[in-house]
Amino acid sequence: MSPERFAKIKAVLNRRQPDLTVITDNVHKPRNLSAIVRTCDAVGVHHVHSADPDGGYGTYHGTAKGSHSWVKVHLYDGVDKPIKKLQSEGFKVYAATFTDRVVDYRQLDYTQPCAILMGAEKYGVSDTAAELADEHIMIPMMGMVESYNVSVAAAIILSEAQRQREQAGLYDASRMPPDEYETTLFEWAQP
Amino acid sequence: MSPERFAKIKAVLNRRQPDLTVITDNVHKPRNLSAIVRTCDAVGVHHVHSADPDGGYGTYHGTAKGSHSWVKVHLYDGVDKPIKKLQSEGFKVYAATFTDRVVDYRQLDYTQPCAILMGAEKYGVSDTAAELADEHIMIPMMGMVESYNVSVAAAIILSEAQRQREQAGLYDASRMPPDEYETTLFEWAQP
Ligand SMILES: C[S@@+](CC[C@H](N)C(=O)[O-])C[C@H]1O[C@@H](n2cnc3c(N)ncnc32)[C@H](O)[C@@H]1O
Ligand SMILES: C[S@@+](CC[C@H](N)C(=O)[O-])C[C@H]1O[C@@H](n2cnc3c(N)ncnc32)[C@H](O)[C@@H]1O
Repeated sequence: MSPERFAKIKAVLNRRQPDLTVITDNVHKPRNLSAIVRTCDAVGVHHVHSADPDGGYGTYHGTAKGSHSWVKVHLYDGVDKPIKKLQSEGFKVYAATFTDRVVDYRQLDYTQPCAILMGAEKYGVSDTAAELADEHIMIPMMGMVESYNVSVAAAIILSEAQRQREQAGLYDASRMPPDEYETTLFEWAQP
Repeated sequence: MSPERFAKIKAVLNRRQPDLTVITDNVHKPRNLSAIVRTCDAVGVHHVHSADPDGGYGTYHGTAKGSHSWVKVHLYDGVDKPIKKLQSEGFKVYAATFTDRVVDYRQLDYTQPCAILMGAEKYGVSDTAAELADEHIMIPMMGMVESYNVSVAAAIILSEAQRQREQAGLYDASRMPPDEYETTLFEWAQP
């Protein structure tokens, strides 16, 4: 491993955001899951919680450009499991879904511990997830089509989270738990 | 056509932004082109200029959810053509590409007439387009992977344009040329 590569890995780990994560609720097209994971890597999300991806993690491919190696994907049967787990750890869950309690996605605070929950390609966020979520958020739609592609919607919301966290200085110093930092550095530095 | 449908069509046309557009430079995967067109509809971009899409407009499908009917896609041989055409009409061209003259995409003004230029899946923005463009913009990358999927990158930039234009009140009153408004209303209102 070149010294440049080692420095790059450390710089990336220094920008990882342990208190920002994504939950997918039955999102099951491999290219959508892959694109979401790739975007997560780019904004510093280190863990993705994928409930009921059907085809499963093994089928993720293509558009991720190898980002799977850089982001940990956790699989669950049932979306209630990751929601409750993260809430018990102090995360707020923001579900991207159109309901009567929805707010514009730019109104929320993404600098606190939070999980952005994305719904399935066809059926959107499940009732279970919508009920358990702390907030419902939406991206304004100005056109004829009623929704964004799910990986596009995830990226729009995550780029707002990235903006707020950059402003708050959350990328300026390492925030990963030290043991996870060391283990990951060791793993990634393998030839 | 129900009165609700007719009202929806008019509301959408009233939010169309004649001075915001997208140029694609050899972007050729149908699902990426489709996702870009779908996002354009959602932020009020009515015209997309697609240079050298290889497979061509005919092959766009799937993820667009029928948005092709709502956005006009113009095809070109050679990316210089749409760039020069739009510049002669007073547009600034912002190319999404990594070069030494790049600025953060949030630093630019998207309320003036502008075209966002996106590069090919594998090779990025061509030298021709990079040279002709007025500005080079990039979205910060905090992770190991070096680029976003092109439709994801387009959506992140367009959502910033949408934010600025909403703040500037550009969605508050109809801005389409009246003859195009009438023709489009007539077309869309056909059963
Ligand atoms: C293609 S959409 C699903 C549309 C589905 N027909 C529905 O009514 O929910 C897939 C997912 O993308 C996200 N999404 C798409 N457009 C969105 C928007 N404008 N605001 C918030 N989330 C959106 C949501 O999480 C949604 O569940
Ligand atoms: C997958 S990328 C192409 C990567 C290509 N290897 C390169 O070096 O340009 C496809 C297109 O998405 C856009 N894009 C991807 N990530 C971007 C970023 N972080 N900032 C700006 N544009 C980006 C650019 O227009 C790029 O040409």
